[in-house]
Amino acid sequence: MTAALMQKDKSFTFKKLGVMPPEPGMVRLEVAWCGVCGTDLHIYRGHMDTRVDFPQVIGHEASATVAAIGAGVEGFAVGDPVVVRPLDACDDCPACDRGYDHICSKLNFVGIDSAGAFQKYWTVRADLLHKLPEGMDLKLAAFVEPLAVACHDIRMSGLTSGERAVVLGGGPIGMLIALVAQADGAETILTEVNPLRLEMAESLGFTALNAAEVDVQEEVVNGTGGEGADVVFEVSGAAPSVEMMTRLARVRGRVVVVAIVPEPKPVDLFQVFWKELQIIGTRVYEEQDYDRAIELLATGAIDPTPLITGEFGLNQLGEAFDQLSTKPEHMKILIDCAN
Amino acid sequence: MTAALMQKDKSFTFKKLGVMPPEPGMVRLEVAWCGVCGTDLHIYRGHMDTRVDFPQVIGHEASATVAAIGAGVEGFAVGDPVVVRPLDACDDCPACDRGYDHICSKLNFVGIDSAGAFQKYWTVRADLLHKLPEGMDLKLAAFVEPLAVACHDIRMSGLTSGERAVVLGGGPIGMLIALVAQADGAETILTEVNPLRLEMAESLGFTALNAAEVDVQEEVVNGTGGEGADVVFEVSGAAPSVEMMTRLARVRGRVVVVAIVPEPKPVDLFQVFWKELQIIGTRVYEEQDYDRAIELLATGAIDPTPLITGEFGLNQLGEAFDQLSTKPEHMKILIDCAN
Repeated sequence: MTAALMQKDKSFTFKKLGVMPPEPGMVRLEVAWCGVCGTDLHIYRGHMDTRVDFPQVIGHEASATVAAIGAGVEGFAVGDPVVVRPLDACDDCPACDRGYDHICSKLNFVGIDSAGAFQKYWTVRADLLHKLPEGMDLKLAAFVEPLAVACHDIRMSGLTSGERAVVLGGGPIGMLIALVAQADGAETILTEVNPLRLEMAESLGFTALNAAEVDVQEEVVNGTGGEGADVVFEVSGAAPSVEMMTRLARVRGRVVVVAIVPEPKPVDLFQVFWKELQIIGTRVYEEQDYDRAIELLATGAIDPTPLITGEFGLNQLGEAFDQLSTKPEHMKILIDCAN
Repeated sequence: MTAALMQKDKSFTFKKLGVMPPEPGMVRLEVAWCGVCGTDLHIYRGHMDTRVDFPQVIGHEASATVAAIGAGVEGFAVGDPVVVRPLDACDDCPACDRGYDHICSKLNFVGIDSAGAFQKYWTVRADLLHKLPEGMDLKLAAFVEPLAVACHDIRMSGLTSGERAVVLGGGPIGMLIALVAQADGAETILTEVNPLRLEMAESLGFTALNAAEVDVQEEVVNGTGGEGADVVFEVSGAAPSVEMMTRLARVRGRVVVVAIVPEPKPVDLFQVFWKELQIIGTRVYEEQDYDRAIELLATGAIDPTPLITGEFGLNQLGEAFDQLSTKPEHMKILIDCAN
């Protein structure tokens, strides 16, 4: 089997590894497709060098089929199409004790903290698998992981049909949040500065606002009869958006912090007080979000195909990362791990 | 009757006004006691000159008895002890339409935007009155309004018995929030920098932390077994507290923004994301918060007497404001409006 090992200098080496029978409780998967995530790009750019133990096989947005099953694993058969929920919790910290094992304080994020999916065969814990409906397109299934993020964000926001949502930032997660909001019957505005992303947002049926050209606050507030949006998703992490986010929400509206904002940034807390807003932090997903993402994709309620801007073979992984890092026209790149 | 009129230069003049029969729907009150609020102090310091129409009778933390009743008013009799919920909503804005008339966008805050309680007789809309239990101490009843703020903050936080609360800032509202948290069975930590307030907090049974001397974050996190607090109330508005507030909360904890923070200040949003926190904005109170505040005071579940650091007659109002503005030992000053 071939595995793509990211080295400390961010080059990839391709190594043939022996294939061992899976240990008890484990399943060997034959990886089909794996998307390149923004987090992978952070790793590639060296932002996570203190966390990642190189050389490492990264990748966590994978679809696969079951290739071999370890002792004690029930409910799966060789050939089953699956996705992996890559959160391996400790089951022993305060977060896990409270039932929030997805944000376990000692979380092993599979594909970051341990070996991920950019390899032909990938052995994972069986309890992290979600079975896919028979016949589901495995290329689309590579979107389950990022779509589950969006489903989690939407669920945590309490968005309901007929509400107005604003998504600040039109990267892959912003687009997927907007798609779920749309599927849930919300009117959806997306703000961006990248013209290609604005074009894509418009073609997907959202109201696209160029934050570099229009007064977003005025547009949103006017566009909602002076009220402001029901829910604002801050997905950009950019200081102007962070400062603006609370100004866009209506009385008792919700502002969802999706982006990772590493350093403290100014927030307009007067708005939080004045309008009794809720700011809600959201991170990754829970089991039910995976179930919903699978359903949305399997039923065709959401079609993420327009988000695919590149497909590469596993042996072209370096080229894929280079393009994603340098070409602003890219949205989601998928890696064909079988070739 | 005598009314204390605050002039534009923040001096007071005392004017004898004629007493007219109350209009339909209105009730004339004979004011007993009225506390001086932090907002009154803001007005006194000139921070609200663009909002307040001087000369104005301010004051909104009042207890009173019913002196005369206008046509069409039911449920009240002359002599009834009452307090006033000083929020006169428009009933026609989006906030009112959604049932949040306490944060009406055209709110007439009685005692700021229209005549308040620093006068012997005060005529108000009957639907803003809450009747007090017979025989309730009217001096204590002057705490209903600020205590209702605390009840609202606690209710919005979802605090439950056995949880750990941290109150950042030990002014009157911070102390009252801590008292309600304590009454609700929470372990309560209060942070301050004023030694007299720290002493008071300790004597009221809270764990008092001097934010100028100890590492509050370390103390709170260590004091909660490494977990962080269930609920953090930011009542200081001070930049270091605002930046620290999200670091003190546990996974899925709540941070309540009580203070008015006029300018955007840095918030550690990484913590919001990482721990899936909720930041909850709260402002004034709703009807049920008034009911609860009355109950807590009437039953003796909360005794705010230690918070009273000064009592002045209505004709000493200037002296009361001067002392509150300059002497850091003051917590709550009450004005005896009958004398």
